[in-house]
Amino acid sequence: MNFVDKLNRITAKNGSLVCVGLDPTLDRLPEQLQSSDQPLFDFNKSIIDATADLVCTYKLNSAFYEACGSKGIEQLKQTCGYLRANYAGATILLDYKRGDIGNTNAKYAEFAFDYLQGDAITLQPYQGGQALEPFFEYTEKGIFILVKTSNVGSGEFQDLEFEGRPLYEYVAKRAVTEWNRNHNVMVVAGATYPKELRRIREIVGPDVPLLVPGVGAQGGDLDAMLVAGLNQQKTGLIINSSRAIIFASSGPDFAQAARAETIKLRDAINEVRKDES
Amino acid sequence: MNFVDKLNRITAKNGSLVCVGLDPTLDRLPEQLQSSDQPLFDFNKSIIDATADLVCTYKLNSAFYEACGSKGIEQLKQTCGYLRANYAGATILLDYKRGDIGNTNAKYAEFAFDYLQGDAITLQPYQGGQALEPFFEYTEKGIFILVKTSNVGSGEFQDLEFEGRPLYEYVAKRAVTEWNRNHNVMVVAGATYPKELRRIREIVGPDVPLLVPGVGAQGGDLDAMLVAGLNQQKTGLIINSSRAIIFASSGPDFAQAARAETIKLRDAINEVRKDES
Repeated sequence: MNFVDKLNRITAKNGSLVCVGLDPTLDRLPEQLQSSDQPLFDFNKSIIDATADLVCTYKLNSAFYEACGSKGIEQLKQTCGYLRANYAGATILLDYKRGDIGNTNAKYAEFAFDYLQGDAITLQPYQGGQALEPFFEYTEKGIFILVKTSNVGSGEFQDLEFEGRPLYEYVAKRAVTEWNRNHNVMVVAGATYPKELRRIREIVGPDVPLLVPGVGAQGGDLDAMLVAGLNQQKTGLIINSSRAIIFASSGPDFAQAARAETIKLRDAINEVRKDES
Repeated sequence: MNFVDKLNRITAKNGSLVCVGLDPTLDRLPEQLQSSDQPLFDFNKSIIDATADLVCTYKLNSAFYEACGSKGIEQLKQTCGYLRANYAGATILLDYKRGDIGNTNAKYAEFAFDYLQGDAITLQPYQGGQALEPFFEYTEKGIFILVKTSNVGSGEFQDLEFEGRPLYEYVAKRAVTEWNRNHNVMVVAGATYPKELRRIREIVGPDVPLLVPGVGAQGGDLDAMLVAGLNQQKTGLIINSSRAIIFASSGPDFAQAARAETIKLRDAINEVRKDES
């Protein structure tokens, strides 16, 4: 089954557009996990068990595992394996924002799809679609291209205007037309820029899922983002929250607190989905 | 000592602008290494021992290690450790082309500088300088920003013109002015685009080192690139070759063959450096 079908299935089953970002950092883990040999994995396992019925995707940002070196990568793999073994319909999005020339990208794809068995990845557009071909060839996988990112300074290049339109619009257009012969290219649009997100939805059309970081700790306006990005089926968005969910409590109740935060976000989103219909 | 001083010292000592790219792939390693528990490291060790007096830098592209998972990352670390322990003046450039929002970039920096103890890294510019701040704060390290990449399709966005000049020129300008208060920002310019490389040299000035991939397997014109990029001291370039050197032979003589190829490249470069002086 390809990524979009898989995503649509779990979205419908769980009634949720929430993506939980599994971005653990050692110094923020609850005390009870600090002495573990595999604290990142133990933490993730608890969060997953507490939230798997509430989400459409888990997003794992490789930076937080790399910071712990080879042991971190091992726990990233364990987490993916745990999801595969225990939650059949779950989708795994590896947020690694890679990008290089072709023969190197083939190796990055091996890491994401063969080693980790991920369902989807995020990529940098700067080197162009030709360089990204080795990723596009994985027709069953989801390829999310950075278009308009959630950070404060994202406009430095992304908002530069060429022939009257900003770079991010041009990247979005190229990604979903020129690069998308396998129907597996999607885009990233930050919740912190709802106006730009609306333009991106117009450009990519109703059927292309948008990965939307920036709610939660980054402070994006949920309602504005939803109105701008939802398609007619009230789907088409993967709404990520990382820190606000996984670090909702630093005590022994961290998993329950994460569950409560996930429910809160799911329900806040679904309230708008209902209103809009 | 900061990266540029370290680079200048080893460049002068070895009389070389050559950077050897340690990008091993399991299926291209000599047969004698196939049964090793740490074939990537064993391979690198042999190449390093055969070439350390001939180069100014080793460039390790993380993709080739990630493709082997946590064991690959372990061997990447072993390789860096081996260089540190045995070749005091050596410089280690981690080619990982990362880029994310700030709190995530702090983690990528930990991987490169704390875990691997690298001297320099490559980064993606698309999210802007604000996001890259956590890297810039490592004042002793070298931060190489992708400006004009060596791949065939690099012009898709990099050559887009706004206000009469291409994006890559604007990125180069921002990188070495706005982002460079710690004098640790440098740029990547592909050997396959000598005309653009000349413009980049003009923009960044004579003192900023350029990392130049694209000679060797990618076919960049060495002479044209050198004439375009050398500064008045006949330095300022880190000229990378990976596959053409490390896979010069697939037999038991691979290390000697790599040495011979490195000498050939070093001498071809130095011939032009001499002519130009």
